[in-house]
Amino acid sequence: MTDSPFQDPDTRTELSALGEFGLITRIAERIQLQQASSVKGIGDDAAVIDPQGMHQVVTTDMLVEGIHFDLAYSPLMHLGYKAIVVNLSDVYAMNAEPRQVTVALGLSNRFPVEAVDELYAGMLLACGNYGVDLVGGDTTASRSGLIISITAIGAVKREDIIYRSGAGSSDLLVVSGDLGGAYMGLQVLEREKAVFKETGAQPDLVGHDYIIERQLKPEARKDIIALLHTLDVRPTSMIDISDGLASEAMHLARASGVGVRIHDDKLPIDPTTYSTARDFNLDPSTCALNGGEDYELLFTIAQADYVKVKGNPSITVIGHMTDPDRGFTLVDKNGGEHPLQAQGWDALLKRG
Amino acid sequence: MTDSPFQDPDTRTELSALGEFGLITRIAERIQLQQASSVKGIGDDAAVIDPQGMHQVVTTDMLVEGIHFDLAYSPLMHLGYKAIVVNLSDVYAMNAEPRQVTVALGLSNRFPVEAVDELYAGMLLACGNYGVDLVGGDTTASRSGLIISITAIGAVKREDIIYRSGAGSSDLLVVSGDLGGAYMGLQVLEREKAVFKETGAQPDLVGHDYIIERQLKPEARKDIIALLHTLDVRPTSMIDISDGLASEAMHLARASGVGVRIHDDKLPIDPTTYSTARDFNLDPSTCALNGGEDYELLFTIAQADYVKVKGNPSITVIGHMTDPDRGFTLVDKNGGEHPLQAQGWDALLKRG
Repeated sequence: MTDSPFQDPDTRTELSALGEFGLITRIAERIQLQQASSVKGIGDDAAVIDPQGMHQVVTTDMLVEGIHFDLAYSPLMHLGYKAIVVNLSDVYAMNAEPRQVTVALGLSNRFPVEAVDELYAGMLLACGNYGVDLVGGDTTASRSGLIISITAIGAVKREDIIYRSGAGSSDLLVVSGDLGGAYMGLQVLEREKAVFKETGAQPDLVGHDYIIERQLKPEARKDIIALLHTLDVRPTSMIDISDGLASEAMHLARASGVGVRIHDDKLPIDPTTYSTARDFNLDPSTCALNGGEDYELLFTIAQADYVKVKGNPSITVIGHMTDPDRGFTLVDKNGGEHPLQAQGWDALLKRG
Repeated sequence: MTDSPFQDPDTRTELSALGEFGLITRIAERIQLQQASSVKGIGDDAAVIDPQGMHQVVTTDMLVEGIHFDLAYSPLMHLGYKAIVVNLSDVYAMNAEPRQVTVALGLSNRFPVEAVDELYAGMLLACGNYGVDLVGGDTTASRSGLIISITAIGAVKREDIIYRSGAGSSDLLVVSGDLGGAYMGLQVLEREKAVFKETGAQPDLVGHDYIIERQLKPEARKDIIALLHTLDVRPTSMIDISDGLASEAMHLARASGVGVRIHDDKLPIDPTTYSTARDFNLDPSTCALNGGEDYELLFTIAQADYVKVKGNPSITVIGHMTDPDRGFTLVDKNGGEHPLQAQGWDALLKRG
């Protein structure tokens, strides 16, 4: 664990030795376009995309060092992978297929060419795994640390787009995978960083592999989109979980003009997440509701589709939508009702 | 001149008082979609675009405080305007029509809501002037200053796309507008900032309006695209001038596999640029060749089209392409030949 990698002058190549155009050439040489829709990638004033008769979806996320990631425990390759994945997750949440990304990087002179190589290796690994082309971007200096801004573009037939606003007042609320793991992974990493700072002890991450991977190298749920297609289930509304389940459920409800009830005892929580939360004296349900960064898909389906999803291990019905006047409610294990509460950016800010 | 605006607590609203979702709502309320191709703007996981049978072009630029701009002399409204324009310029350079932008902002807690309002006012003014929709983005915290990353999307018929790579070895090299002004504007602003720091004297910008506007509030040459259409001239290659004429001319030549000769005495230089360069003991031609940030269009045309552009005050023939073995040459006023030299990112880095 260190926050100063690439210090050895013998293995360190300064970015200034390569220059901007040298860096662009170096990146472009490692890219092979895979998508027939990618007409022109890096190397002109703009990339060119053939939409092939489809609608296009566009989403942008910015990741800032010290706010969204800490290089003391985020390997650059994982960070590159995650930076791509969080954008693809937004594309899947529209029921679209991601096809292209552009990458804007701000780099302080702390980062040598080798660091940029690792970051791109992670980004290109994610692009390869998801069948996406890196078609353009910008690389610039930064006065303080690393900034990554990615735009992802996807394609979808107009009639297949799923918005946040389509939930009906009696629809079921469904989530993929399990929740709270990324947040607990972060807690473990922060604890071990603090120990390292105090004692110099290398981190003890034994038994926490799953939740640490959830934090450092999440995946976007491409497989869930395929599963829903196979099951012949078309969600009425959909969103991906970046800020936290509670926040996203309220987004779906507000956008659709309905209420929502989530049942605490239905929340899918991995045993590792559960036991780690207990070790930290945290309520596992709160971690699942507000932890964020799970990048699972949250969606609503018509009640008639319940038989199609029932018992599927990849997705869990965790509640249902209601008439709007019933508001946003969390039902606890004893049947008690509580107002659903969301954290968002402000909580994230505190983390920074 | 100040680098600490918005210090008065009576007129300052902290971003934390609004929160991320409050800020998104505030921005979204000010936006009216104008493009029929913008199906869905801010408010879902991604924006939705209907390409209407056109190809799409995509370009991204990141602007970082202390590298690309100095808030001591860049009003936030101008900065927002410029941030949009520099991206649109790339879209026009593909012969495409810009239609949508997404905006990712990193903001340190130095910036109150009022600052974000000014920045967006400038961005939305540019969007309005160019008929472009702001359809999405991201707003996040930053530990140090302001970061703006913009992605612009444009539409163009496949057969109308103009790449950098289409120049023939006997084509003419043509540039719009005049060159070096943005660079000289920056020199004046930097000088007045230095004077202000030393003596507290307010800046003396009299007589420099044109070049200061070129630096702080440039325009993208939408009108030149329209003019070329009217003149029935189709460039064989095109690029916009962000790094400097010499650098961009070499991009066209390299991408097209040809040489290039630029005639020093043909360079279009505004009298204000010329006289200011002289005041600074700078060579006006060097400023025109390497100053950068002019956002003019540089393009090549077939010799047969010369009669169509001859004498047009908006565009100037400054040289011609050659066989590749003749290289990249600057012809001086006495007919002497010099290797064309380009500066780029590394020069910019020094500026930061």
